[in-house]
Amino acid sequence: MKPSIPKGTRDFGPAEMCRRNYIFNTIKQVFNLFGFSQIETPALETLGTLMGKYGEEGDKLLFKILNSGDFLKDMSPERVAEGDYRKIIPTISEKGLRYDLTVPFARYVVMHRDELQMPFKRFQIQPVWRADRPQKGRYREFYQCDADVVGSDSLLNEVELLQMIDEVFRRLGVRIAIKLNNRKVLAGIAELIGAPDKIIDITVAIDKIDKIGLDNVCAELAERGLTQEQIDMLRPILNISGTLDERLEALENLLGENATGALGVKELKFVVETTLALGLDATLDLDVSLARGLNYYTGTIIEVKALDVAIGSISGGGRYDNLTGVFGMGGLSGVGISFGADRIYDVLNALNLYPADTAAGVTVMFVNFGEREALASLAMIKKMRAAGISAEIYPDAAKMKKQMARANALGVSYVAIVGEAELEQNALTLKNMSTGEQTLVSIDEAIDMLK
Amino acid sequence: MKPSIPKGTRDFGPAEMCRRNYIFNTIKQVFNLFGFSQIETPALETLGTLMGKYGEEGDKLLFKILNSGDFLKDMSPERVAEGDYRKIIPTISEKGLRYDLTVPFARYVVMHRDELQMPFKRFQIQPVWRADRPQKGRYREFYQCDADVVGSDSLLNEVELLQMIDEVFRRLGVRIAIKLNNRKVLAGIAELIGAPDKIIDITVAIDKIDKIGLDNVCAELAERGLTQEQIDMLRPILNISGTLDERLEALENLLGENATGALGVKELKFVVETTLALGLDATLDLDVSLARGLNYYTGTIIEVKALDVAIGSISGGGRYDNLTGVFGMGGLSGVGISFGADRIYDVLNALNLYPADTAAGVTVMFVNFGEREALASLAMIKKMRAAGISAEIYPDAAKMKKQMARANALGVSYVAIVGEAELEQNALTLKNMSTGEQTLVSIDEAIDMLK
Repeated sequence: MKPSIPKGTRDFGPAEMCRRNYIFNTIKQVFNLFGFSQIETPALETLGTLMGKYGEEGDKLLFKILNSGDFLKDMSPERVAEGDYRKIIPTISEKGLRYDLTVPFARYVVMHRDELQMPFKRFQIQPVWRADRPQKGRYREFYQCDADVVGSDSLLNEVELLQMIDEVFRRLGVRIAIKLNNRKVLAGIAELIGAPDKIIDITVAIDKIDKIGLDNVCAELAERGLTQEQIDMLRPILNISGTLDERLEALENLLGENATGALGVKELKFVVETTLALGLDATLDLDVSLARGLNYYTGTIIEVKALDVAIGSISGGGRYDNLTGVFGMGGLSGVGISFGADRIYDVLNALNLYPADTAAGVTVMFVNFGEREALASLAMIKKMRAAGISAEIYPDAAKMKKQMARANALGVSYVAIVGEAELEQNALTLKNMSTGEQTLVSIDEAIDMLK
Repeated sequence: MKPSIPKGTRDFGPAEMCRRNYIFNTIKQVFNLFGFSQIETPALETLGTLMGKYGEEGDKLLFKILNSGDFLKDMSPERVAEGDYRKIIPTISEKGLRYDLTVPFARYVVMHRDELQMPFKRFQIQPVWRADRPQKGRYREFYQCDADVVGSDSLLNEVELLQMIDEVFRRLGVRIAIKLNNRKVLAGIAELIGAPDKIIDITVAIDKIDKIGLDNVCAELAERGLTQEQIDMLRPILNISGTLDERLEALENLLGENATGALGVKELKFVVETTLALGLDATLDLDVSLARGLNYYTGTIIEVKALDVAIGSISGGGRYDNLTGVFGMGGLSGVGISFGADRIYDVLNALNLYPADTAAGVTVMFVNFGEREALASLAMIKKMRAAGISAEIYPDAAKMKKQMARANALGVSYVAIVGEAELEQNALTLKNMSTGEQTLVSIDEAIDMLK
């Protein structure tokens, strides 16, 4: 049989793992620096935990696990004859694969509520699975990197998360724009124009403004049942221009009459002003058309775009006020962000932003000239490793050409030669693979050179 | 609903994650030091890849994924009426969860054979899933940490792996005994007593020698069809005593007539002598009753036991000669070891071997006295983080007692106080949480103190 892997999944080889680890480690270090603690939840969750949390479409995209043993024992041929596979699922499957990190986190918080120190700042970096149709850049198994603060309404959390985003991308060398909005601003707009029930229609339409332009958005709004008068009230809000300060000011004036909207602008202003006062590399931007996860977010909405690569958002998040309600624990609000590891990987690849030593494997490869030389080499290798220098020996006394081919393919920095001459002097010849320079040294000198 | 997780799975909270990361990072650092490269394969594999690789029992223990969409479309009520769930599986499931890291590795090698630099030294640290009956210390989702060298017959690979085991447990502070055997020795014994076809019976029986004693093993061997004469020949081999050298010598003499056995002893001697010459902390031991994975291993067999905790083996492995044959690529031999992360975790917990700073979360928590103080604190925190010191602010201006309770619960090393007095002097008060000592310092002085 010719082996294959399921569509939408990937193998990561050594070079890819180095690059991915660089990204994950960078994110993890920043999370730790900001006082977030890591947790991990199982890949398997009960379908009771997962079903109904991601809408009808999400339920379909959950990977479901066939019950172990005789899964047919409670199933009748009649039910199969009925032909509705959805009704059969609960009979033959009780577990599924994690679809995101938010629902497992909510479940975790509820189950561990008595152990958690609130506000609880957690991060989680784990794969998730979705039975989506695979396409370029969309996988069925991919990593999410989430950080959330729950149990605190303070806007300082938003400021911290924005600084954290800034620091992650500063370290990765990716120039970004952080777009901000606030769900209360969107609600305020809808209330202001007298269409509070149309907030979804409005946000769905204005979300397309970058793609189709303001006029087409207005046409769509008319189709969705807004009156001309309402659209005319909306236009100036969508047309706000100027510096970030000027636009916040304009938005404040336009929404001033509406309590919800005014609160939203006030929150935005605090978050923007505090973040700018602390200083950041990223461009901070207001985007009233930003509406991601509208049904979930209740305050700040955050989205991050790479400035130098045309790709969807590479990070995003927002404030929510009821993480755990669906599991019977009310009133827990929080704010979180998620880093899109796969897109960040694509961005770093596109811009070639990996540090030179990212793919560095082993530092020194010893050539193998036979048993006696190999044993002397192994003793030297042991000393190198004790000094923190990665080293290996070619395991067989193969032809020099073959051994050097490996050294080149692995991109080792040095090749070490312990032949008869070196054995006699209890020394080794170190060949610098970039300069070609060769030096006869003792093992202690070699270690000093390499450290 | 009261949420739960599937039986045999676990949540890992912040403290557990710190301890687990300590173990995984230690293992990973050593793998890198020895020149092993990391790969990752998907959690999902096709059932074509997984089925038939772990025996009939293994096939049952595979978690199988229900096909997306209408999985009933190719199923007739008649087939359900037949009642054989095994026959139904291929119709409704084409993917499963990774059961170990060896089969995915074999699949990976075959699919990427043209890109790989042989000998290929890979490591892989990922969870695996088994629908086993959960019990104490046995989980349905757990991590494996495997390192293998494929494409080289050299016994130096064995020596390297033994050194690697030694280094991992030296770093973890776990005293271990490494038990060695060689499949050829077992085959030689079976040949020598004239029962080459009984090698499985012999190994199954003598594997119990520690538990039931030599006399009972001999009784079992008689039951399994060995003649008294054969058992009498076997006794002295199982009774070998003395130092490791003496036992290898005795084994050599006892098996000297048998070519297979003699080769096995020669291999064992080379591995033992070379490893001892390089020096190691672990106790090295010969155990002719060691037979793990007999159907798979063809040469060296390795098993690691903790000396100070009564628990099963915490690492093990061996040499195999046909990793990829089942996927149509013949002749690829290798040698590998696997670290049992969950048992190692249990051992470190039992002996309390974690370094003092393992659970260290954030280093400094700033008390929040209100907006003005908080903003000044955030600027200081930014400087601390830039110096690599993890720091956070309590997000709300809560009561001092509540804030200090968090600092204590999180185990922060320092609490920073920026109140009115400190604001005036553009300074902060650092409270050392272990000594209680308080110092008024500038932010730069604070950073110097903390670094």
